[in-house]
Amino acid sequence: MKIIKTILVATTLLALTFVGQASEWRALDPENTVLLTLPHGKVVIELAPQFSPNHVKQFIKLTREGHYNGASFYRVIDGFVAQGGPKDGSPLDKATKKLVLEGEFSVDENFTFTQVQTNDMFVEQTGFKEGFALGYNSKEQKAWMLHCPGVIAMARQTGADTATSHFYITIGQATRYLDRLMTVFGRVVYGMEHVQAIRRTEVVEGDTPVDPKYYTRMLSVQVMSDVAPSERINIEVSRTDTETYRNKIADRRTRDNAFFFKKPPPVLDICQTPVKSRRVK
Amino acid sequence: MKIIKTILVATTLLALTFVGQASEWRALDPENTVLLTLPHGKVVIELAPQFSPNHVKQFIKLTREGHYNGASFYRVIDGFVAQGGPKDGSPLDKATKKLVLEGEFSVDENFTFTQVQTNDMFVEQTGFKEGFALGYNSKEQKAWMLHCPGVIAMARQTGADTATSHFYITIGQATRYLDRLMTVFGRVVYGMEHVQAIRRTEVVEGDTPVDPKYYTRMLSVQVMSDVAPSERINIEVSRTDTETYRNKIADRRTRDNAFFFKKPPPVLDICQTPVKSRRVK
Repeated sequence: MKIIKTILVATTLLALTFVGQASEWRALDPENTVLLTLPHGKVVIELAPQFSPNHVKQFIKLTREGHYNGASFYRVIDGFVAQGGPKDGSPLDKATKKLVLEGEFSVDENFTFTQVQTNDMFVEQTGFKEGFALGYNSKEQKAWMLHCPGVIAMARQTGADTATSHFYITIGQATRYLDRLMTVFGRVVYGMEHVQAIRRTEVVEGDTPVDPKYYTRMLSVQVMSDVAPSERINIEVSRTDTETYRNKIADRRTRDNAFFFKKPPPVLDICQTPVKSRRVK
Repeated sequence: MKIIKTILVATTLLALTFVGQASEWRALDPENTVLLTLPHGKVVIELAPQFSPNHVKQFIKLTREGHYNGASFYRVIDGFVAQGGPKDGSPLDKATKKLVLEGEFSVDENFTFTQVQTNDMFVEQTGFKEGFALGYNSKEQKAWMLHCPGVIAMARQTGADTATSHFYITIGQATRYLDRLMTVFGRVVYGMEHVQAIRRTEVVEGDTPVDPKYYTRMLSVQVMSDVAPSERINIEVSRTDTETYRNKIADRRTRDNAFFFKKPPPVLDICQTPVKSRRVK
């Protein structure tokens, strides 16, 4: 009897462990995931239609039309952004319709997210929702995607509603002063090191300018569901709404580890708080 | 007479302009500048003996002994650090003496710097001194170099005073929780894009591990004054103690430009506030 009981307990524990592990990860929707193929590596981007629906819709439509295939990253500034798109003023470029800014969205009093910090320099509250870093102002009942490193956003002209198809990926310290003023519509979940290796187009004063023929090109940009299954890169991302994730954040805040021989201030920069990815078959 | 007066005024204006321009830049001291040659590009690092004298002294001594030539970047985590040094436990590694932490330094009541922000999440005040980003606590009368992207710091074991020769360069969102706990002793002033292109050694779960034979090596690390003049990269950096620089910061804070159709909060993240470099003959 004791053996059976032990087996039963062991089986239950095993089952719980499996359930527990499975629920800590979320598979990406291949209809809202993009594969950016660069000459030196592959990059996977998760889009956020729940926060920036029209930008995602247009980006997917243009991607399916082959709009970005062969386009250059023509404005790449170290520590800032890698921006690309079709040649300015080209027929392809001019044919794209302008988008109304989706820099922020309204929420109601039931809004919840996994709060990270309340004394951020730029906003009342920061936190994660579905893996994306958000700012939230409870009085305004507004939330918005933050300009953390590795987000993708639409470039625009001076006017708020002038974005079309040119996008940038942030490659340096969070450009938080752009929050709400630009539409972030996704984030890199795999291959960020390849984005970091995109050829810079701007050099310091006194250095040799870069010939545009060396600009990094996008070999292709594809919606993941259009990629042959054998060629797909399947990514799962850490869920950010679980007890486990909340505990991870709490541990990170307290730094309860001998390496921290004295403790840093118990605050977290949301853009320095990781949401992990893993690759699956 | 009118012509002469015009010439005199013009000459004076010209002289003032030259003086003004010249004083906005500071030439680096080649005795405290390092040239890191990677297979894919050259990187210039300004050392900070004024803030971390013993770390700089040891780093220069080791550099002159050829300690780093051929060493690998063996711990490179995207968005975090690129860490390198001689093989752990090798005779070269074991022969290096341990350094006492220089994570912060004492200042007196006459301490001044170019203040950037007073509501930073981690510290009472942030600002620049001689181009380096510092934190400053007036009550403690302590200041320290901040872990902004592109700083070089000594790695260590668990104990505070265990750093020897292995160093890291920060390659992502500022790891400010390491402030005061590690010794920052310089910053990259040229070629940061090449640091960003160092091969990552850690991959996400489920991805193919990187064979150490592909780790990026330091072809050489040299004190700039030891480099043949024709091979030197001569860099000047923006002075941060001038009225012009203070005005630049003030302008950056107010974002008085039509692109900002509504103004972001009037705060500056010091790690996102540039101190420019330029290359000279």
